[in-house]
Amino acid sequence: MPNSFGKLFTITTWGESHGAAVGVVIDGCPPNLPLTVEEIQTELDRRRPGQSDIVTPRKEADRVEFLAGIFEGRTMGTPISLVVHNTDQRPGAYDDMKEKFRPSHADYTYQAKFGVRDHRGGGRSSARETIGRVAAGAIAKKILALAGNVEIRAFLTAVHDITVPAAALEKFPTLAEVEATAVRCPHPATAAAMIERIKAARSAGDSVGGVIECRVRGVPPGLGEPVFDRLEADLAKAMLSLPATKGFEIGSGFAGTRLKGSEHNDAFEPRDGRVRTVTNRSGGVQGGISNGEEIVFRTAFKPTATILQPQQTVDVHGQATELAAKGRHDPCVLPRAVPIVEAMAALVLVDHWLRQSAQNRTFKF
Amino acid sequence: MPNSFGKLFTITTWGESHGAAVGVVIDGCPPNLPLTVEEIQTELDRRRPGQSDIVTPRKEADRVEFLAGIFEGRTMGTPISLVVHNTDQRPGAYDDMKEKFRPSHADYTYQAKFGVRDHRGGGRSSARETIGRVAAGAIAKKILALAGNVEIRAFLTAVHDITVPAAALEKFPTLAEVEATAVRCPHPATAAAMIERIKAARSAGDSVGGVIECRVRGVPPGLGEPVFDRLEADLAKAMLSLPATKGFEIGSGFAGTRLKGSEHNDAFEPRDGRVRTVTNRSGGVQGGISNGEEIVFRTAFKPTATILQPQQTVDVHGQATELAAKGRHDPCVLPRAVPIVEAMAALVLVDHWLRQSAQNRTFKF
Amino acid sequence: MPNSFGKLFTITTWGESHGAAVGVVIDGCPPNLPLTVEEIQTELDRRRPGQSDIVTPRKEADRVEFLAGIFEGRTMGTPISLVVHNTDQRPGAYDDMKEKFRPSHADYTYQAKFGVRDHRGGGRSSARETIGRVAAGAIAKKILALAGNVEIRAFLTAVHDITVPAAALEKFPTLAEVEATAVRCPHPATAAAMIERIKAARSAGDSVGGVIECRVRGVPPGLGEPVFDRLEADLAKAMLSLPATKGFEIGSGFAGTRLKGSEHNDAFEPRDGRVRTVTNRSGGVQGGISNGEEIVFRTAFKPTATILQPQQTVDVHGQATELAAKGRHDPCVLPRAVPIVEAMAALVLVDHWLRQSAQNRTFKF
Amino acid sequence: MPNSFGKLFTITTWGESHGAAVGVVIDGCPPNLPLTVEEIQTELDRRRPGQSDIVTPRKEADRVEFLAGIFEGRTMGTPISLVVHNTDQRPGAYDDMKEKFRPSHADYTYQAKFGVRDHRGGGRSSARETIGRVAAGAIAKKILALAGNVEIRAFLTAVHDITVPAAALEKFPTLAEVEATAVRCPHPATAAAMIERIKAARSAGDSVGGVIECRVRGVPPGLGEPVFDRLEADLAKAMLSLPATKGFEIGSGFAGTRLKGSEHNDAFEPRDGRVRTVTNRSGGVQGGISNGEEIVFRTAFKPTATILQPQQTVDVHGQATELAAKGRHDPCVLPRAVPIVEAMAALVLVDHWLRQSAQNRTFKF
Repeated sequence: MPNSFGKLFTITTWGESHGAAVGVVIDGCPPNLPLTVEEIQTELDRRRPGQSDIVTPRKEADRVEFLAGIFEGRTMGTPISLVVHNTDQRPGAYDDMKEKFRPSHADYTYQAKFGVRDHRGGGRSSARETIGRVAAGAIAKKILALAGNVEIRAFLTAVHDITVPAAALEKFPTLAEVEATAVRCPHPATAAAMIERIKAARSAGDSVGGVIECRVRGVPPGLGEPVFDRLEADLAKAMLSLPATKGFEIGSGFAGTRLKGSEHNDAFEPRDGRVRTVTNRSGGVQGGISNGEEIVFRTAFKPTATILQPQQTVDVHGQATELAAKGRHDPCVLPRAVPIVEAMAALVLVDHWLRQSAQNRTFKF
Repeated sequence: MPNSFGKLFTITTWGESHGAAVGVVIDGCPPNLPLTVEEIQTELDRRRPGQSDIVTPRKEADRVEFLAGIFEGRTMGTPISLVVHNTDQRPGAYDDMKEKFRPSHADYTYQAKFGVRDHRGGGRSSARETIGRVAAGAIAKKILALAGNVEIRAFLTAVHDITVPAAALEKFPTLAEVEATAVRCPHPATAAAMIERIKAARSAGDSVGGVIECRVRGVPPGLGEPVFDRLEADLAKAMLSLPATKGFEIGSGFAGTRLKGSEHNDAFEPRDGRVRTVTNRSGGVQGGISNGEEIVFRTAFKPTATILQPQQTVDVHGQATELAAKGRHDPCVLPRAVPIVEAMAALVLVDHWLRQSAQNRTFKF
Repeated sequence: MPNSFGKLFTITTWGESHGAAVGVVIDGCPPNLPLTVEEIQTELDRRRPGQSDIVTPRKEADRVEFLAGIFEGRTMGTPISLVVHNTDQRPGAYDDMKEKFRPSHADYTYQAKFGVRDHRGGGRSSARETIGRVAAGAIAKKILALAGNVEIRAFLTAVHDITVPAAALEKFPTLAEVEATAVRCPHPATAAAMIERIKAARSAGDSVGGVIECRVRGVPPGLGEPVFDRLEADLAKAMLSLPATKGFEIGSGFAGTRLKGSEHNDAFEPRDGRVRTVTNRSGGVQGGISNGEEIVFRTAFKPTATILQPQQTVDVHGQATELAAKGRHDPCVLPRAVPIVEAMAALVLVDHWLRQSAQNRTFKF
Repeated sequence: MPNSFGKLFTITTWGESHGAAVGVVIDGCPPNLPLTVEEIQTELDRRRPGQSDIVTPRKEADRVEFLAGIFEGRTMGTPISLVVHNTDQRPGAYDDMKEKFRPSHADYTYQAKFGVRDHRGGGRSSARETIGRVAAGAIAKKILALAGNVEIRAFLTAVHDITVPAAALEKFPTLAEVEATAVRCPHPATAAAMIERIKAARSAGDSVGGVIECRVRGVPPGLGEPVFDRLEADLAKAMLSLPATKGFEIGSGFAGTRLKGSEHNDAFEPRDGRVRTVTNRSGGVQGGISNGEEIVFRTAFKPTATILQPQQTVDVHGQATELAAKGRHDPCVLPRAVPIVEAMAALVLVDHWLRQSAQNRTFKF
């Protein structure tokens, strides 16, 4: 089931960029959760095209509808089916892509794997697929908020070579701070520079990438299922399952490899009536299990593959050719990826919460 | 099934560090594969304690036995059961760990999750668990070699702040080059410096981490199952499921976020009678599916958590205390982690090969 | 994922009887299969209400729509999303069910499990859920027909105490013979008696059950995955996952327990250039694996729980009360269950075909 | 993972009849369960060869050993690994089976599927595989007993054409009543007749089958996961995954198809302070979910395929030949199958208990 994610809180996404609709089925959502369509729409609006002047100007309202699983404003424990109809379809705009493989896109590999593909807008490989993830993630976030006051906050820490100063990340950013700028970086001066860099890339028919950090607070100790379903392993899979991602790190990450053990270890201390760590190089996870500290991880996104400059490529007949994208693209995917990263983190955490509860709290001996 | 990995070629590992034995059950291995116990032993010997003067001097022969699934030298398509009995058990050596949580280890989180743990040598959280992975990976590697001449080569590119020069990594290293030094870095001068750094850390009662790169050549286009079971997503999960890992990147990785799209995209060209890329910033995977180029990924390992210097911690009663490890530990886990990284890569690839074959080659319309 | 079925050809059904729609997502359908909406509609029409004078006269057109996974008349290897909008909703008709648990229905158990339920028409427990199964089964049937000329034929062998004479079942019935009568029994005289019995039950405000036999020819030897995913085990699960089923048997079934081994064993003989059995008490499966003979199994369906006669029951407040159903119900579910049984059989077989292909044909050593 | 069963309490069995050992890995057993090797041995002794004069006289002590997952007498939440070494191996005794396919055995189908097989004693298709199931089931039974006073009791209701009188089954049999006779039928007069029939079959070089009923009391309402993982669906799969089974029925089963709805429905009444049914034709399950009544199901076992009389068959070269079994076989598998049926029922129930707990009790809104 390559289009499903999660063992107990399982989502199955479906849909092509230019098919009739995209959607998601959520199996395993606990019953009796109060839920309105607006709560889901709010999150979808954060990933919607056309929301600011640094994202694609495509016109997609991305209005979500409930088809099943909700009755009188509450979940029933039955599958929740959500759909978003596709509206902004310009059939002619993709004729070039029918014949030519876009560099660093999925056109060639889908053709090689399946022998057939919907070339329009990338078909299934389009980031429109993540609509279902964000919709399901909105439900997961609500569960976590109600269950344990868990807060998930993603934001940009780098665009191209512009990075947030470390000091600016000392406290957990508020949602308002993140949403204050179109680029979703909570440090205003850096955000302004990032926006300039993105606009400059767009003007040049080029694109930029960057890094999104995600922090989670309120997670109790005990989530994560060694040895294979460690919390960080499932977070890594969740992030690398997103389009355009090239890397993942948790806590000290790659930089931590340059510390000695005596510098890197997180000493324990009794604090607030429980076991706490003095530092958090572990990033909230030890031995694959949450330790009750803030979970902190980062994901690397490459520069958008679609650029307006002409590029060397090959066509479906194997002949060398050239391609220059036309139309309306994101010069940087990161601002719209922030709610997607949060959604995937929420899905991983709810799933592990259910698993921990089943295996370690059901029977008491 | 948190102790299982893979959908069609599934391994289930079991065992605690100081229990009777550790082992693995492999379900889904194709029938008729010629297999000897020596082929598996060879890989286990690469991760064995005591193999050089920069790893732990613990005495574990780690002799593997076949219990099921092999008949007259061939697999039968039935579960393969492999066991390694634990021999070097020093019960008294771990008394301290019964009461005190080792910093940046899994002691506290296992206790918080399960309410019980085998404290001896880390119990289930010990890296001895990876014996089963390496044994199963030896089978996966053999399948890949027979099936498509696939070669998997992992090696160290960094220890602490010592890194291999980029130019030294231009060609695919041979196994002999990797195995030539105890540290498993194919660049002799760098290897020598790494060994010195590891010995210095050990002398100081300290430890160091680093980075392992893994390359795979011979993988055909088409492996990987979007949207969630992308090849890089499953590789990321595999790597982050290993003890002591903090990060994963594929192709250009985190450094690629500092390039523009026009610099980062891999142009296509017709070459060798098929579609090839001119560069390989994608790391062999596009849209979650292999494109036939070399697969290249890197994993970050933190410095070993066990150090001989005294550290501040908390005991099982919640009281502040101090702990200093005794005994025989790896000052750097990376040299012994090389065969483990290769094993996990092989397991991911065989699993995806089977999945691709089932879904896309079974029925022809 | 309790709403999913199948490991490699996986369906996920969703929807409540009186919600907006019911549907199914199919993940793992091989690419390049030619497929029209009419091919699916044809099967849905066989389970539709109002198709004859012995089934419920409810008016549901049950028109299916493709939302994803099909492009230019072919599957793409991406998830296929199918939806049927619910039209015949009479909100007032179910007010009684909100307060009172219908005997031998799922009202009480859903309430006990989930603490909430959509009482209208049984909500998720309604047989309308099987629309998704039949739609997905239509695709599975087409694959089997194209792949290996596999034919699946279900039909009634008993209604109440009226049973088909054994001699009438010697040959594999044609689709025309099954569809010739409203009751879907290929023996005309028995069919006539069954129809009379069903009408008599309806007139009395009562209901009847019966037995459906299903035969499959053209299945090659080798399908089925011991030890747990034996072909008969997965068929049994598929059948017992249908509403109103109480039993399953394959080959000689319960009657076979009254034979001695010497009478029951199927002798082998060389025939048609391959290994065949002289008799088929095994029902086409030996050791959990198909042997190339006809697969023959039977499923017991209880009498419809909804009857118009008044019955003793309990309300949601735990008080004793009485209930008499009103409205439009099937006095016997079996005629409409025939395409559902075929669909589930097809889903099991395609799934096992893919699994057999992956595990035993991918690599040749 | 065809050799695994259960979603949250997952067992993986491994081993061939005449390999080095058979065993099981249990993943998902809750931590802190007190467990001794004797508790498991007790159940294994009930399925052991040589336990009475109506079963095979083969000499297998079937001594179980703990390899992992137990520490100081308690489970740890880590995988439990259990092994039973094979001792009674007579290599020469199976030479005939290397060349000739035994009728109604798995020899031919394993060969057709895998292209290779361990012919000795049936290899993987041998009922020795069920040792792992019984060992794991012993743990599941203990959990159920501690968790909710759940009792599982299986017993024979038929051997060949000898059946227990209905009146004798009115009350829940005690373990002592079942174990009082070698045939495990709680009605002494019937038991005596069954024993005679089994001995007569053996004397004639023949075999007999029969029916095992299983009852479970103490199960709370709410277990079972519609729509596919209904409790009866998973029980059916569990039973049909056992060697030699040909049928399954729950509650009224096949006989219930001869009742009218007005006769078959189980009226509800308030009793003992909760909702109860007056009758139990549902067999304790409604809509796929337990309703708190006794769970009652029956499984049909065919006559043992191995008989001493000569039979017509085919050899591995496709030539017609004849075969007569030699040696030590069960003339009737049912007495030894009783603990296996109980084990599978226990495994299904613990798994569903964990699932119900996770999905419906973890979060309270």
